[in-house]
Amino acid sequence: MRLLRGLSVALMLMPFLAVAEPLPSWNDTGARATIIEFVERVTDPASDDYVTPADRIAVFDNDGTLWSEKPIYFQGLFAIDRLREMAAEDEDILSSDVLRAAVQGDLAKVAAAGEAGLLEILATTHSGLTADTFIAAARDWMASARHPGTGMAYDDMVYQPMLELLHYLRDEGFSTWIVSGGGLHFIRAFAESAYGIPPHQVIGTTGKASYVVTDGQPVIMKDPSIFFIDDKAGKPLAIEARIGKRPILAAGNSDGDFQMLEWTTSGEGPRLGILIHHTDAEREFAYDRDSHVGRLARGLDEGPDRGWLIVDMTRDWERIWPGR
Amino acid sequence: MRLLRGLSVALMLMPFLAVAEPLPSWNDTGARATIIEFVERVTDPASDDYVTPADRIAVFDNDGTLWSEKPIYFQGLFAIDRLREMAAEDEDILSSDVLRAAVQGDLAKVAAAGEAGLLEILATTHSGLTADTFIAAARDWMASARHPGTGMAYDDMVYQPMLELLHYLRDEGFSTWIVSGGGLHFIRAFAESAYGIPPHQVIGTTGKASYVVTDGQPVIMKDPSIFFIDDKAGKPLAIEARIGKRPILAAGNSDGDFQMLEWTTSGEGPRLGILIHHTDAEREFAYDRDSHVGRLARGLDEGPDRGWLIVDMTRDWERIWPGR
Repeated sequence: MRLLRGLSVALMLMPFLAVAEPLPSWNDTGARATIIEFVERVTDPASDDYVTPADRIAVFDNDGTLWSEKPIYFQGLFAIDRLREMAAEDEDILSSDVLRAAVQGDLAKVAAAGEAGLLEILATTHSGLTADTFIAAARDWMASARHPGTGMAYDDMVYQPMLELLHYLRDEGFSTWIVSGGGLHFIRAFAESAYGIPPHQVIGTTGKASYVVTDGQPVIMKDPSIFFIDDKAGKPLAIEARIGKRPILAAGNSDGDFQMLEWTTSGEGPRLGILIHHTDAEREFAYDRDSHVGRLARGLDEGPDRGWLIVDMTRDWERIWPGR
Repeated sequence: MRLLRGLSVALMLMPFLAVAEPLPSWNDTGARATIIEFVERVTDPASDDYVTPADRIAVFDNDGTLWSEKPIYFQGLFAIDRLREMAAEDEDILSSDVLRAAVQGDLAKVAAAGEAGLLEILATTHSGLTADTFIAAARDWMASARHPGTGMAYDDMVYQPMLELLHYLRDEGFSTWIVSGGGLHFIRAFAESAYGIPPHQVIGTTGKASYVVTDGQPVIMKDPSIFFIDDKAGKPLAIEARIGKRPILAAGNSDGDFQMLEWTTSGEGPRLGILIHHTDAEREFAYDRDSHVGRLARGLDEGPDRGWLIVDMTRDWERIWPGR
């Protein structure tokens, strides 16, 4: 009975235990209140806007929304480091100007080669190995590589306010999904440890793959070509194919997220679209309309009229990264 | 304190409340014991083979594994009924011999047209509408159509022993997924009500789709061409892309499931592969090596040596469908 008595006391005390306020790293500048008001509205069984937990789907872009994306997408920096390693073992893989520019660190030349150049670097470094081996390689890189500007580990450059938002939503019965233009396996390498998002809730750009059986042992090999690009209109299409329900909350930071927010917020009932606006050159980076990564123009033009919440990082976030 | 006293009594009584035996519609002919022994082994924290709940992934084929598939896949019967409805409104859609044969109910001629013929029927009947409208149409059909042989509703022709297996696994902390060659949206139309499997845990053959915005309102349109065929080696590839973990249990009934079982059971640690063998001409259907749907040959030849459990429907199942 001792255990039961202890349980009874705990049950009685529960209502009086201090409950931490949600979103502590968000300033009281409006955005925080908008989010909390939305969540309370959809989780209150007495509300007309109540949404059952199974339908509380929240989708998040990754680069620029959950972690930083400058000077280029971190996956691009990983690919270049990996290309250097591969070239150290076999120089013949540097079979084009863009590959040679990449290992020399000539990001301007890589950028000048456009999407085709980037895809060539990704194809070279992201294929010819199993999905498991690739994920292990990405984790090794993440454990040792440091950001050229901040000197931080890349997975320390996740946004503390967004981590709090993910936790808050899950505490309130939401399921949280990543819907990113970044590579599926690259994101899976850190999504569970960094964000608490399991592999099946990561949607990303996906390469082709092959099922190969050697001496009775099957493996899944990553192939060089692209199967699906999870960007722009691809995002709502992937959400429909993968989740099968329209989200009620979507967060992004660039025009690549426009259709995902449009799809989410044009559904019936309560909806919340969030755009992270990178305004903070001092603590992070400031960019929008003219940036080659994370370009945000249409979202700024149309978002406010669509009722989307534009988060101003300088004004609305008390902290950027967990450490600082 | 009255409530707490009641709670205390309930907590004390719990160990003595009768717990229903799992898998009541399975005979005590070996298969049932094999499944229960496996589940107890992976869920016992004291076992060397203990598997954490997040890794208790179980994947199931649909046609012939969770419900019947004769005389042809039920989705094919739906497509033919839908083609008849469409032709009644616009006869011009019957633009080929196979489409005309289909509306005339000439299944032999449809079968003779092979996969190309079937794909033409599916393309005609499964495109040009939104995913939501399609799912609603499939549900309408399911509510009124009856199987030509049994006179039963199609979603009553789900296997009672497999429903019990799905529930038992979920009760034991597994997540249950469908990995089917059938169409994603067709399966989603009934998977939640029939199997308790939510839309995001349905993996199926997927058509291309378009994101179309008209007057500011976006919809997702189903297009005629195929994006991904979830069969044979496509099954482990889809499992990797969608779930991102190797299952520890896989159940199928045809050689289209071979690679899914191979991938599942060649992982390290405890694994269970299950093949449903259709042996019961009296209560259901009997077919294997020579069947045009659900052909099972390699699985019968290699399955036993691979340690796969071959379920003999006549011997191992006390009941087939919930009603009988």
